[in-house]
Amino acid sequence: MAYEKGIAPRLTKKGPAEEMDDSTKDEVPVLIAGFGRVGQVVGRVLRAKKIRFTALDASSEHVDFLKRFGAKLYYGDASRIDLLRAARADKARIFVLAVDDVEASLRIVKTVQQHFPHLLIYARARNRQHAYGLLNLGVTRVFRETMGTSLAMLSSVLQGMGLPFSEAEQAAERFRKYDEELLLETYKHQHDQEKLVERAKQAYAELERLFENDAKKDVA
Amino acid sequence: MAYEKGIAPRLTKKGPAEEMDDSTKDEVPVLIAGFGRVGQVVGRVLRAKKIRFTALDASSEHVDFLKRFGAKLYYGDASRIDLLRAARADKARIFVLAVDDVEASLRIVKTVQQHFPHLLIYARARNRQHAYGLLNLGVTRVFRETMGTSLAMLSSVLQGMGLPFSEAEQAAERFRKYDEELLLETYKHQHDQEKLVERAKQAYAELERLFENDAKKDVA
Repeated sequence: MAYEKGIAPRLTKKGPAEEMDDSTKDEVPVLIAGFGRVGQVVGRVLRAKKIRFTALDASSEHVDFLKRFGAKLYYGDASRIDLLRAARADKARIFVLAVDDVEASLRIVKTVQQHFPHLLIYARARNRQHAYGLLNLGVTRVFRETMGTSLAMLSSVLQGMGLPFSEAEQAAERFRKYDEELLLETYKHQHDQEKLVERAKQAYAELERLFENDAKKDVA
Repeated sequence: MAYEKGIAPRLTKKGPAEEMDDSTKDEVPVLIAGFGRVGQVVGRVLRAKKIRFTALDASSEHVDFLKRFGAKLYYGDASRIDLLRAARADKARIFVLAVDDVEASLRIVKTVQQHFPHLLIYARARNRQHAYGLLNLGVTRVFRETMGTSLAMLSSVLQGMGLPFSEAEQAAERFRKYDEELLLETYKHQHDQEKLVERAKQAYAELERLFENDAKKDVA
């Protein structure tokens, strides 16, 4: 789902819902930018809950079929103000930022905050460094993309080692809280945010510090 | 964390824990193959729970510092029988397969099943296609890497739309169960498993069917 910078957004590509249902076309409350693995799950449940959404994706492959299901779709670079305007970001309430490319994600946040500051942003983060970048821009609803599944897997492994279900689940939940607090704590002590994105060496150094902190505290 | 096929496993690289603690060196119950975002979370909590593990990773960057914390480490291709033997896969009970490369993952499963069939495999899956590939090899403890976080994000978005916490959480949980059942159901009707890995067009077609199924059932 890498963003193709050369793609000109084809703003006139609209779904049948928009054509058939002009009276409510300004009332779509949720925008989902990035309709890959994460955005699709969000969209599927919103649809089941009968909450309307508009999807934006860099590629037409992800979203073309959505037309048949009455969802609006736009493809192109979601950090472009014209694409966001066409998708009626001014009328939405929630902006689900589910792209997997770190730089595209941060670029989209900047555009959305500048032009549509009323939107609540819920952001997918690739890793800790990406999360720092989002926090630095003031985005607080940050979801690290592999954390939930890592904890589910961990709980199962603990059960496989003979721990009772409740103890395994508690360990996963305590670790989640501990690691979120640690993320925020570490973030506060960062000063050079511009350099925080995707620097592998820094990530390893930080992981080392995490292990040191784990050893000091009763994390699970 | 792409596997570097050219790397010769440096089997003699061992941590101080192994050197200092020969008496228990055969008693490490958990192997973690792939020490990226997922493997690290599992390893950190296992360590906090004082459950010993050995990490295997394609790159020395991920695991070198582990030595200082008493965990064993091996780097190289975890589908190599000599690496698994050196890591004492014969004495372990649980194999956490946390690599993010689909082909490497499936290759590792085949080696582990052939040579260490006693190991319980807990596998990270990139997406549905990867999950099918794992199921086809008989691996049933499959964790799709972005599913847990997608559901957490979805629950928050529903709450942002005004739904009560309990209703949002229930929707996420119902969808998780529904989608897992659908995954197994769809899998049973697949016949050509060899072609299932990472074919984008097929994934889109399947997503379309998922939306159709969502519309039929009360999924959330």
